Amino acid sequence: MTKADMNQTADILVTNGTVLTMDANDQKITNGTVAIVKDTIVAVGHSREFAEWQASRIIDAQGGIIMPGLINTHTHAAMTLFRGLADDLPLMDWLNNHIFPAEAKLDRRKVFYGTKLACAEMILSGTTCFCDMYLFEDVVADAAKEAGMRAVVGEVLYDFPSPHYGPIEQGFAFTKQLIDQWKDDPLITIAVEPHSPYLCAPDLLRKAALMASENHLPLIIHVSETNSEVSAMKKKYGKTPVEYLADLDILSSNLLACHCVILTDKDISLLQKYDVKVSHNPESNMKLASGISPVPELLNKGICVGLGTDGCSSNNNLDLFLEMDTAAKLHKVNTFDPTVMDALTVLRMCTIGGARALGLNKITGSLESGKKADVIIVNTRKPHLTPMYHPESHLVYAAKGSDVEVSIINGRVVMENGRLLTIDLEEVIEEVNKIAKEIIT
Amino acid sequence: MTKADMNQTADILVTNGTVLTMDANDQKITNGTVAIVKDTIVAVGHSREFAEWQASRIIDAQGGIIMPGLINTHTHAAMTLFRGLADDLPLMDWLNNHIFPAEAKLDRRKVFYGTKLACAEMILSGTTCFCDMYLFEDVVADAAKEAGMRAVVGEVLYDFPSPHYGPIEQGFAFTKQLIDQWKDDPLITIAVEPHSPYLCAPDLLRKAALMASENHLPLIIHVSETNSEVSAMKKKYGKTPVEYLADLDILSSNLLACHCVILTDKDISLLQKYDVKVSHNPESNMKLASGISPVPELLNKGICVGLGTDGCSSNNNLDLFLEMDTAAKLHKVNTFDPTVMDALTVLRMCTIGGARALGLNKITGSLESGKKADVIIVNTRKPHLTPMYHPESHLVYAAKGSDVEVSIINGRVVMENGRLLTIDLEEVIEEVNKIAKEIIT
Repeated sequence: MTKADMNQTADILVTNGTVLTMDANDQKITNGTVAIVKDTIVAVGHSREFAEWQASRIIDAQGGIIMPGLINTHTHAAMTLFRGLADDLPLMDWLNNHIFPAEAKLDRRKVFYGTKLACAEMILSGTTCFCDMYLFEDVVADAAKEAGMRAVVGEVLYDFPSPHYGPIEQGFAFTKQLIDQWKDDPLITIAVEPHSPYLCAPDLLRKAALMASENHLPLIIHVSETNSEVSAMKKKYGKTPVEYLADLDILSSNLLACHCVILTDKDISLLQKYDVKVSHNPESNMKLASGISPVPELLNKGICVGLGTDGCSSNNNLDLFLEMDTAAKLHKVNTFDPTVMDALTVLRMCTIGGARALGLNKITGSLESGKKADVIIVNTRKPHLTPMYHPESHLVYAAKGSDVEVSIINGRVVMENGRLLTIDLEEVIEEVNKIAKEIIT
Repeated sequence: MTKADMNQTADILVTNGTVLTMDANDQKITNGTVAIVKDTIVAVGHSREFAEWQASRIIDAQGGIIMPGLINTHTHAAMTLFRGLADDLPLMDWLNNHIFPAEAKLDRRKVFYGTKLACAEMILSGTTCFCDMYLFEDVVADAAKEAGMRAVVGEVLYDFPSPHYGPIEQGFAFTKQLIDQWKDDPLITIAVEPHSPYLCAPDLLRKAALMASENHLPLIIHVSETNSEVSAMKKKYGKTPVEYLADLDILSSNLLACHCVILTDKDISLLQKYDVKVSHNPESNMKLASGISPVPELLNKGICVGLGTDGCSSNNNLDLFLEMDTAAKLHKVNTFDPTVMDALTVLRMCTIGGARALGLNKITGSLESGKKADVIIVNTRKPHLTPMYHPESHLVYAAKGSDVEVSIINGRVVMENGRLLTIDLEEVIEEVNKIAKEIIT
């Protein structure tokens, strides 16, 4: 993989850190360097191989960890606006009396600033790419693009009228518009995102799947998040949500099924057979008391599982370092087996696994020559990261997002020394505080 | 509670923040002030009541949260030295092949620096008081005292010879020495700490309980952490660990039982009957795949439960903000009830509840006139703490230890702007890095 000999100049050399490549061999380089030209990684290797290189800019990791940016495979970014608005409530009370009324007040401006706030939080905590499902996704794409983040975005589609686009036909028209507008964008990928089997009639789902496959885009959907959802589907259709999707011919390798908490053995076999990707959201599933997804079993079957935070109203933050920690621990206690979900497995889920889940593994998710430069530096000279026996262990079990000091996305430095370079944080906080007052009055 | 009118001068006024008192009424003061004279809180109230006050020093919380420092009711501080040394292993492999061999290399110097590192991490993440059980506890007390932390410390006692003191008689002699040495210290409280029912014969336990009660000190012990431990006790004595302790007449209101993962209904009744205190360590119990303590049930019975991190080799950090988040979420998913362990309940466990668990509730755990000044400021002007509807929610579900900016313990400012004032962090990190090399060679 080392191509230090092939190229003697770079725009940026990220150097003097332990490089976790997260490549197919999980190659780790003590005192390594990553060379970037424009938006692309051109070489990864031992720092000594770069001694003769010229670079416009050298970023010194000072002995920290140089790794791929983390990937959040499922969120509703603008729900930052509802962070802590209502917690600790029965699900239906929470939705009907708090979240739905708040969402009814959403508009373009609110979603834009809510998403900007989410981007600020994500960049500061080491996330370089996120997958969004919400309303007004045109401004979600705008906000992510301005923030310099890589994002997969799609307008949520369901049977009833949307507060944004109205009837479903306009939802599809809007999605088509997004696809055309963002085609070939270096950062933004549009996805087709029907909400869930229980809120989408067969016709909607078939049409969405066709639109995704015709445009070679991901199809993203909530699946089997709660027991009550699965029961309702069984009552209505006589099958589980996964069986329902299978019978509609919608299961495929470009489908990302979010949550997958309540799964039968047959469901798991179907996910495996069709190479469906899964987004695992442990903290949200815990907070809403939905259940625990059988992730170790999914991984054993070779199913690709990425991590996600879900929205801020059921988490309540977007810090993937904390999500990794929770995922690693939750499945241990759930299976009474301390060996499942080891640190490296969880780290893969949040990097190359997440990229694969989103169909972006050719361009991001690992530090390899030819990939886009989505790179973060974790400062390990902190009490809670001392001493350092195994970097993977610290990243999963001891680190937090606040340990990330530098973030580079698509070759652009978007955060340095904990300071955001692409977002006016003061402005975003002021606007969101104003919006919060509008929401509760 | 407000005594602003009774006192017009202070050494420190902590002002301009939302004060969470954690008093018996959970009083919350928007734009509040805490006045400190020497080591003691002399007034808490609305900032306007302090307009005429004179103070040597004003600490501006800048709109953040002013609250009691967090209390870690169970840790083995010097195990920071083994942080990430071995993870994701079967319990016996982990203990026998990694932890025990590493512990055999411990000495006074190693434990001192390991504890100093733990104090640095704890202060930086908002903990002002911790309860320790380990070896060489004389230097643990020294390290905590130098760091300016409040601590309950006790040498671990068990049937087999200790790597520190040798045979158990010397363990008791050493504990007595600690008691005499630290009597009336403002920060350090000595506890009597037999390891567990399965490693301590009846005589040892009776003697320890007597020593604790004669000296009016806490008795602290691991209880029912794993299924295998409970099975072994049943096989050996025909009773659960809690029943065993009950039959030895050891259950009392000054007993702190750590873990309490595997409990029968009868065990819970016994804990309730004798007002035994419980330390809940969810992250460690998850990581070691031990199980989930029935904490909501304990709380329903009125049993006092504090939170603890356990040692760094099974966590792997000492951040109580993360522990609160995990505790709140874990019990929701475990009971399929999103209303259990609400934010305020969890916050109480980590403040006044923790103080009560350690017998320190008359001097710490809440911000009230007459209590010792153990105060932290959480900076809330951050993306992941925006917007702010309910401070309690953010502290449990969104904050991390790195959001703490100021820490005051016993009236002394020990951390400001994230900078430690009582610990030479560079020195500690260097020494611990040297020790880590000694441990793995």
